[in-house]
Amino acid sequence: MPRTPTAEALAEAVLRGERRALARLITRVENRTTDAQDALATLHPHTGHAYVVGVTGAPGTGKSTLVNVLTRALRERGQTVGIIAVDPTSPFSGGAVLGDRIRMGDLVGDRGVFIRSMANRGSLGGLAATTGDVARVLDAAGFDVVVIETVGAGQSEVEIAGTAHTTLVVEAPGLGDDVQAIKAGILEIADVLVVNKADRPGVEHTVRALQAMLSLGHRLRTVGHHGQRMAVEETSAPPEYDFWDVPIVQTVAISGEGIAELVDALERHRAYLRQSGDWHARERARVTAELRARLQETLWERLLEERGAEALSAAVEQVLARELAPQQAVRALLNGR
Amino acid sequence: MPRTPTAEALAEAVLRGERRALARLITRVENRTTDAQDALATLHPHTGHAYVVGVTGAPGTGKSTLVNVLTRALRERGQTVGIIAVDPTSPFSGGAVLGDRIRMGDLVGDRGVFIRSMANRGSLGGLAATTGDVARVLDAAGFDVVVIETVGAGQSEVEIAGTAHTTLVVEAPGLGDDVQAIKAGILEIADVLVVNKADRPGVEHTVRALQAMLSLGHRLRTVGHHGQRMAVEETSAPPEYDFWDVPIVQTVAISGEGIAELVDALERHRAYLRQSGDWHARERARVTAELRARLQETLWERLLEERGAEALSAAVEQVLARELAPQQAVRALLNGR
Repeated sequence: MPRTPTAEALAEAVLRGERRALARLITRVENRTTDAQDALATLHPHTGHAYVVGVTGAPGTGKSTLVNVLTRALRERGQTVGIIAVDPTSPFSGGAVLGDRIRMGDLVGDRGVFIRSMANRGSLGGLAATTGDVARVLDAAGFDVVVIETVGAGQSEVEIAGTAHTTLVVEAPGLGDDVQAIKAGILEIADVLVVNKADRPGVEHTVRALQAMLSLGHRLRTVGHHGQRMAVEETSAPPEYDFWDVPIVQTVAISGEGIAELVDALERHRAYLRQSGDWHARERARVTAELRARLQETLWERLLEERGAEALSAAVEQVLARELAPQQAVRALLNGR
Repeated sequence: MPRTPTAEALAEAVLRGERRALARLITRVENRTTDAQDALATLHPHTGHAYVVGVTGAPGTGKSTLVNVLTRALRERGQTVGIIAVDPTSPFSGGAVLGDRIRMGDLVGDRGVFIRSMANRGSLGGLAATTGDVARVLDAAGFDVVVIETVGAGQSEVEIAGTAHTTLVVEAPGLGDDVQAIKAGILEIADVLVVNKADRPGVEHTVRALQAMLSLGHRLRTVGHHGQRMAVEETSAPPEYDFWDVPIVQTVAISGEGIAELVDALERHRAYLRQSGDWHARERARVTAELRARLQETLWERLLEERGAEALSAAVEQVLARELAPQQAVRALLNGR
């Protein structure tokens, strides 16, 4: 390989199992270089095998430790694991306290584990798209499971959840009343709820609150959350109405308690996805959203090229001067097209 | 007014100061009805007067109480205040404990205050755009200050911050180690840092940690965070390099301690924005981002109309079958255009 290999060459090296090429290619993908797009196209036929698990939750729930322990459990079952840490508080991104980093130490020497931090990427915009691309690189590289860790609650988390087959939402007792309230939004994307730090006082209260919220009818359909929002309006495929009862699993990540049950819950959800056709429905929703984003980006670039950046600037100034409303400026810019 | 007035008629009533019309028009804007767009265009010439303040922070920082107390302080100075609660944990959206709701009770009967919750809107997508539109309705309705309360950390918060002239980031002592780490991202959008619950133990530690992060060079330029990311690439206006030292204000919202200092900090930042030209730069960045979003949406609708939803579905299936990479599918869909 030349000293500065093309992304294409890196992609071929990744398919041969070269680990250094993997890290270098991911950097290109993160930087959204043009040749990274070609490399992704090369990898595309080799994707579709990995089981992608999203892990999200507020700071303080111990989700990074959980990812660590979960990874070890998967390794014991012979699965290879790629971890993408989008969460800036994750020890995988160097964001957390020393104890966490020591706990993750035993993963570092293992060739069946690959850890990538995306937490410190400058721009939040496009993070979801880039995370999806990196997950696909890991998929093509042959990892059995890809774990994406996010901090929860924001739009980017919901979008990143769109990349996952199964989304774990991690809670913990005793994080205050406010935390209970925030769950309403995040519950909608949960396939499996984890109450971590289950040895703490108040765990029964947390579990009961989650059960109450689940029974209030949040998330009755599993296809719904990704499928409906992103795809159903654009495809003619009928929505599916199979049911998945979101389980609540109690864990103490630090001691490993409940981890076997968590792995079982993941296996059950994976099997459910396959049997119900939901696996394919989620993939379809994801691809539809991706094509849409790419098409919009390309259409935008073409418009800028045709009209010129000056026309846009001029329209902005007219809106600022209150000569045109934004709606009118858009019409003016598109006229003659 | 007829029983089901047009959005246009509601807009005119809003300009006459009718409060019920305001609530009804905002509902139309939230529902993104076509005639709401015309109403927004009607209101546009009357916007540009309100001072828009974003307030963001993690659950448990007491930011809702802070918004409440801040609003009272502004009222005492004769300013009218519109509040948009995007945060599902806010008492303004009915999300918090009873005590909070009692504390906000005294705002409810005041005609100089208007409170709108957007926390329970189903779709997170488009929330930032809708919040911006609602802020402009309140602006046209004559509110001197518009406060937008968000829960912090996600992409939508950063986008919503793009709507604000001044962004307050609220912290509190004793929320755990993880919370310290998360600040790195959110600090970038802070114009004023508030350490609330400053009567709690650990407040010096929190303040020192924030000072350290500020001095590490986060956010050296004030134009940068909105201006650069959203606009500078698209306009030919040079970035401005004026400096604003992000102040750290300690408050105890519940007792009113530090609120006068906070109002002063807001006034100073507002004056700074005007003097430095940053006010206009931020408006320009916001309008540029808005026009871009609207243009992209319209281009997308046109493409769907031209090509038909079936062509998109077919492309999705080819990508799923690994016959085409997403990049190739996009090229195929746009060919002949």
